[in-house]
Amino acid sequence: MKFLKLASLDQVYSEYLRRLQPIGETLEVSTTESLGFVCARNVIASQDLPGFNKSLVDGYAVRSKDTTGASANFPVMLRVVFEVKVGEEPSKAINENEAAWVATGAMLPEGADAVVMVEHTQRFNEYVEVMKPVAIGENVLRTDEDVRKGQLVLAEGERIHPGHLQLLLQLGVERLKVFRRARVGVISTGDEIVEPFVKEKSAVQVRDSNSYGLVGWLKSLGFEASRVGLCKDSEDELFRTLRSCFDEYDVLVVSGGSSIGVRDFTEAAINRLGKPGVLFHGILIQPGKPTVLAIVNDKPVVGLPGNPVSFTISAKFVLIPILRKLENEKDFLFKPSGMVKLTRNVSSRQGREQFVRVKLLVRNGQVWAEPLESETARVFNLVEAHGVIRVPSDVEGLCEGELTEFYSLWSGW
Amino acid sequence: MKFLKLASLDQVYSEYLRRLQPIGETLEVSTTESLGFVCARNVIASQDLPGFNKSLVDGYAVRSKDTTGASANFPVMLRVVFEVKVGEEPSKAINENEAAWVATGAMLPEGADAVVMVEHTQRFNEYVEVMKPVAIGENVLRTDEDVRKGQLVLAEGERIHPGHLQLLLQLGVERLKVFRRARVGVISTGDEIVEPFVKEKSAVQVRDSNSYGLVGWLKSLGFEASRVGLCKDSEDELFRTLRSCFDEYDVLVVSGGSSIGVRDFTEAAINRLGKPGVLFHGILIQPGKPTVLAIVNDKPVVGLPGNPVSFTISAKFVLIPILRKLENEKDFLFKPSGMVKLTRNVSSRQGREQFVRVKLLVRNGQVWAEPLESETARVFNLVEAHGVIRVPSDVEGLCEGELTEFYSLWSGW
Repeated sequence: MKFLKLASLDQVYSEYLRRLQPIGETLEVSTTESLGFVCARNVIASQDLPGFNKSLVDGYAVRSKDTTGASANFPVMLRVVFEVKVGEEPSKAINENEAAWVATGAMLPEGADAVVMVEHTQRFNEYVEVMKPVAIGENVLRTDEDVRKGQLVLAEGERIHPGHLQLLLQLGVERLKVFRRARVGVISTGDEIVEPFVKEKSAVQVRDSNSYGLVGWLKSLGFEASRVGLCKDSEDELFRTLRSCFDEYDVLVVSGGSSIGVRDFTEAAINRLGKPGVLFHGILIQPGKPTVLAIVNDKPVVGLPGNPVSFTISAKFVLIPILRKLENEKDFLFKPSGMVKLTRNVSSRQGREQFVRVKLLVRNGQVWAEPLESETARVFNLVEAHGVIRVPSDVEGLCEGELTEFYSLWSGW
Repeated sequence: MKFLKLASLDQVYSEYLRRLQPIGETLEVSTTESLGFVCARNVIASQDLPGFNKSLVDGYAVRSKDTTGASANFPVMLRVVFEVKVGEEPSKAINENEAAWVATGAMLPEGADAVVMVEHTQRFNEYVEVMKPVAIGENVLRTDEDVRKGQLVLAEGERIHPGHLQLLLQLGVERLKVFRRARVGVISTGDEIVEPFVKEKSAVQVRDSNSYGLVGWLKSLGFEASRVGLCKDSEDELFRTLRSCFDEYDVLVVSGGSSIGVRDFTEAAINRLGKPGVLFHGILIQPGKPTVLAIVNDKPVVGLPGNPVSFTISAKFVLIPILRKLENEKDFLFKPSGMVKLTRNVSSRQGREQFVRVKLLVRNGQVWAEPLESETARVFNLVEAHGVIRVPSDVEGLCEGELTEFYSLWSGW
């Protein structure tokens, strides 16, 4: 079975990504080392959080009904019978017209159902004047108000972030089952491509930056990525290179030229590897059109355009979702970082969704995006741009001042 | 000299961060390993990029004036005298009424000043019919159009991202001078705090999540962070702990309780360490108010509130800018990820800037932020929230549908 050769990005997501076989292998890691992994088994809270009725302020634990009608002019007088320190279980209960001093985080004693903030009290030896009534539960975090025992706190398919880590540790979850990270191998192809630090090169030879750039980027995102090496524009050489490292990786990426002849031999080399082979050849995006998507023996093989800007856009919007899908992430598609306003009109390219590189500026509390000169052949674009905006293929363009979704390329924006 | 005890976030940035002494130590790294470091010496392009006049398309290199008046009905006929492959230097020039086949990325021969896309031509053996005129420079990237020799391509104080990496490798920059990363030591304090995986604990003891959460988070951002350990609510114990590890780190972070007595002994312990000691005690933000900012022998010591939500907000908006400043990053303040629209009204807390945790949703191409229940004592907040919006202290609130800046907490949004 073969799909259409030229596809929209939506088709890639719905038809290609859906076909990918996620990695089944899991490992068990210490929760403290689990950041960035995708959870492989639902985690259920084994206890309530906070696990006791907790004071949210420094003040006096009281029976709320004892404070009815209290005001600055007519304060209610309560007897302070003991003090509860943080980390201590109160040994006694409070009775009618009694109060206990509680620090922020301390446990409420039996009998108390609210806390009066110290700011609304006046202490006189063993008595306290309460100048404001409190309602039941006021200034208290109930025993199961944060998390309820039995509640799902981390679901299979969620990528673990520092917020999860905090919650899991509060719950005493020591180890987690996670999916192993995807292994990516990157090959740069092109007769003109040379190693970046070669001493002698002719004017027309081009230093390889795509493989190193992508490997560094993917590693900074936590993926396992390695550079396989360079390969000439030769079907045989590419086929042999792919075959030799095929078993080591979950995904093979070929950075390739986008000129007509070159595209064909990339497709041919991939198709020689196995079935079903190339499924999509060309995506209706600009830049990034000459992207090749294949599956060989259940493994994705991805050809990205050789131009560094197209390469990067295609890696962001096609390759990274593939890796997230492989790692079993439920929510594998990228999301906008937010919206921005355009500093000027952007015209569309009919028939292709456009990813326009933009520079952001903050002006009067609004975030503006300045579209960069659209020449995708300029590598400097990747230094100037904070991210991209999308111009759909079915509009004539976007207008100055228009609000549009922004997708950051690197963190920092 | 001591600053005001309670400060706005702006004061913290302008008065405290300005006083910090950035790390002077540099190291030399391979460019391929430089991601995430801050550049310590300007990098100047040693060559033009692309370094030759480069065809942006597959087509015919021509003298543009030979194509004047060409149309589908009246094509111009040119003789194809040779072909230039990618990575090859053309050995000859083209003359009047001649053309050379060039692939995308190939060098233009002498004499040619434009390229006609193959789509606008018809080939007949050694002749080609050009059906559309081209202007000088059309479909060509000039030799220095991407980068000019002598141009600044990476400035001291910029943090290196994958886009820089691509450009530096294209230019053959093999090694870079960078500032070493900041080393952060994290201490959790509190009589109620216990190790997270302790087997036996009473209901009121709280597992330490702040130190592990922060260390994991900072490491995922590339900083060098370690957990120092737990410490009781005791001035002496905290003082001894701080002193024992003081020389190992560039920044010491104390996660502490926020109740009245506890705050005082943290300040006292820090002040015993050295001069000038605590400069700010309390920041006018909610959550995050009980943040302590000190400098001891030129080294920042930061007390963050013990509540995990307040701790995280304060780490994001106070601690991380400090670390970026220490690492010599020019642009050390956080930036909004973009703007969002509010799904409902948010009221402000008079006198304190509020960081309201929000969940994002994309609806009809617009990014909406749903403010989460504001209880900062709920750790689960950190799992639900994608980031925060800021409500300034001098407004009454923000309205449903209002456009406001969004700050992501973790990547993924």
